[in-house]
Amino acid sequence: MSSSTSNSKEELIPQGILITANKVHTSFKTELLTTIGNSEKFNKKSPYLIGILSTKKEDAKIYSEFTKKACEQIGINFEIRLVGEAREGLDGKGIGIDVEEAILEANDDPDVNGIMVYYPIYGGRQDQYLQSVVSPQKDVEGLNHQFLFNLYHNIRFISPITLRPIPSSHLPISLDSKINNNKSIEQIPNGSVKSILPCTPLAIVKVLEFIGVYNKMLEYGDKARGKVITIINRSEVVGRPLAALLANDGARVISVDIDSIVEFSKRPSNSLSTTTSKFNSHHITTPLIDFNLKQALSISDVVISAVPNSNYKISTKDLKDGCICVNVAGEKNFESDVREKASIYVPSVGMMTIAMLQRNLLRLCEYQDMIKSAGL
Amino acid sequence: MSSSTSNSKEELIPQGILITANKVHTSFKTELLTTIGNSEKFNKKSPYLIGILSTKKEDAKIYSEFTKKACEQIGINFEIRLVGEAREGLDGKGIGIDVEEAILEANDDPDVNGIMVYYPIYGGRQDQYLQSVVSPQKDVEGLNHQFLFNLYHNIRFISPITLRPIPSSHLPISLDSKINNNKSIEQIPNGSVKSILPCTPLAIVKVLEFIGVYNKMLEYGDKARGKVITIINRSEVVGRPLAALLANDGARVISVDIDSIVEFSKRPSNSLSTTTSKFNSHHITTPLIDFNLKQALSISDVVISAVPNSNYKISTKDLKDGCICVNVAGEKNFESDVREKASIYVPSVGMMTIAMLQRNLLRLCEYQDMIKSAGL
Repeated sequence: MSSSTSNSKEELIPQGILITANKVHTSFKTELLTTIGNSEKFNKKSPYLIGILSTKKEDAKIYSEFTKKACEQIGINFEIRLVGEAREGLDGKGIGIDVEEAILEANDDPDVNGIMVYYPIYGGRQDQYLQSVVSPQKDVEGLNHQFLFNLYHNIRFISPITLRPIPSSHLPISLDSKINNNKSIEQIPNGSVKSILPCTPLAIVKVLEFIGVYNKMLEYGDKARGKVITIINRSEVVGRPLAALLANDGARVISVDIDSIVEFSKRPSNSLSTTTSKFNSHHITTPLIDFNLKQALSISDVVISAVPNSNYKISTKDLKDGCICVNVAGEKNFESDVREKASIYVPSVGMMTIAMLQRNLLRLCEYQDMIKSAGL
Repeated sequence: MSSSTSNSKEELIPQGILITANKVHTSFKTELLTTIGNSEKFNKKSPYLIGILSTKKEDAKIYSEFTKKACEQIGINFEIRLVGEAREGLDGKGIGIDVEEAILEANDDPDVNGIMVYYPIYGGRQDQYLQSVVSPQKDVEGLNHQFLFNLYHNIRFISPITLRPIPSSHLPISLDSKINNNKSIEQIPNGSVKSILPCTPLAIVKVLEFIGVYNKMLEYGDKARGKVITIINRSEVVGRPLAALLANDGARVISVDIDSIVEFSKRPSNSLSTTTSKFNSHHITTPLIDFNLKQALSISDVVISAVPNSNYKISTKDLKDGCICVNVAGEKNFESDVREKASIYVPSVGMMTIAMLQRNLLRLCEYQDMIKSAGL
């Protein structure tokens, strides 16, 4: 508009050219229409793109409708899948719920050719995690780690067979193993080895086992049942994997981060989620609205803190009497009088982290030998 | 110490038990020593772990020495590899330089059994990117995307052959193609297809091509040579991949983010880097110390802004006369009088982003057919 409107100011000061994306778009639209027209000639079905929308935010919704329209115009089948709070009746139940399951389902569906996800969802590292869950074979956004790696290394050409999704073929095995959970020890399926766990969360689990938080009498996968555990930190390196590990073992975990408090718990076998499938993560997360750290601490049997800030201190007076406190950060997150309330205090886990790293190394050496001797 | 010291306060208030990681560590140390002892019986070489240290920060250095000591104690070969500013004479040259190359070299070295990297390096998403560059076969920290995925889905057992590194087998092809760069069009190696590029950065490149920033007379891979381009945003979704793409095409890119300004440029063929190898990324990055946004704008032929904040505005008066401005954020990052300085202004790229997404979709449909018809 403004480029054609003339006013006294514009007559004096020259104006640069305004280029709208529309102008650039024209030649590409022709190319796209030709490609789709050519496949139609060979009676191929239209490309099928899934858009996963998980938020009620107006701009994400508008963008998804805009994508739909732009796809339909050129003969691409586009379906918006609503998950999380974008679904009716799920207000306040958290925007990210079921996004990962929806991606995995679309990865596995042979009719789906492409997947896009409307970000930001959680923002930051958890969104980046989701970007790599999308199968590279269907990643129209090109945000999968493999494609970014290629870009940074100027690898412009690839062999299509290298576009492998994360091996989720083990998912059904994981569900079968639920049946085996009715035993107190782990059952390793034939030909399989243990996955590798991130060493800091694993070190913390080992510390909790040592100090009796895990009850050896309970069944495998349920040994932390009945325990309320607050974890302060939800990074992809420490807090989120730890919350999932402890929830997988039956604990009720309250995960606290700067912007939100979320509860992690084991998914009940008769889950109420409408998308119950083999793609479900093993735990469920529920945002705790109107709930604060002080309330969390008052009911927590175990408090684990990993805040890399020397000014961050948990008030001893807020702790539940007799609780167990574990400090993970290099800085001390507990006050010096913590043991007046805590029955057990673990000031550092660094040495255990290294032991778990060494244990991972020895396992990987073994796996490398297996791969080598299989000639793979 | 404090648990054995008794003072008047402690006599009145009962103190919880102090558990040091040392106590938990004992049984694991025994397990580790047994495993290593058993392999020695079969004359196997000691496990070989590489620690990549790229910062001068005291705590990272202390932690690396602590790991070394803990490894040597139980018979693990540990080597600290110094890169970036941890190397002598590289002060102020940026902590992250050569980290990725060092990881790839260790991935590829059959003598190396495990790799650990001392984080934080860049912090946030770029560290998460590096975590997935480590081959899952050697990832002792367990931070690779594949292992985190397994954890969140409670996949406890895997088949070792699923531990595939990112296919870097294409790296040498990429270098060979440098020779082919002496032509003005792309050469696609036999049996290969194009990699997929992230759609927002790609959309921006297409806009820049349209408005003449790329010089068609120049050789392929050099078409943006001579251009200074400032990009405000260095996320893994927009700014960093875009900076790499434009640097790969010969531009001098000034990448501005909240905490730092970094220059991206094409790696010269006779690079001075001491680790010149097939693992080098195609571009080099140099931190610009004592250099600010205003200075960057004053020399920039192109300014691209993607700051998702409606309060963020680039001052028209700071722009170089006749420059090209591209607004990528939903919010307008340029002032309304931008065209008094800019010769060309592109207010939005959203429509092109969708076109690139559609183009990626059509390519992936084709690749899916190739994979299917190859029976893979």
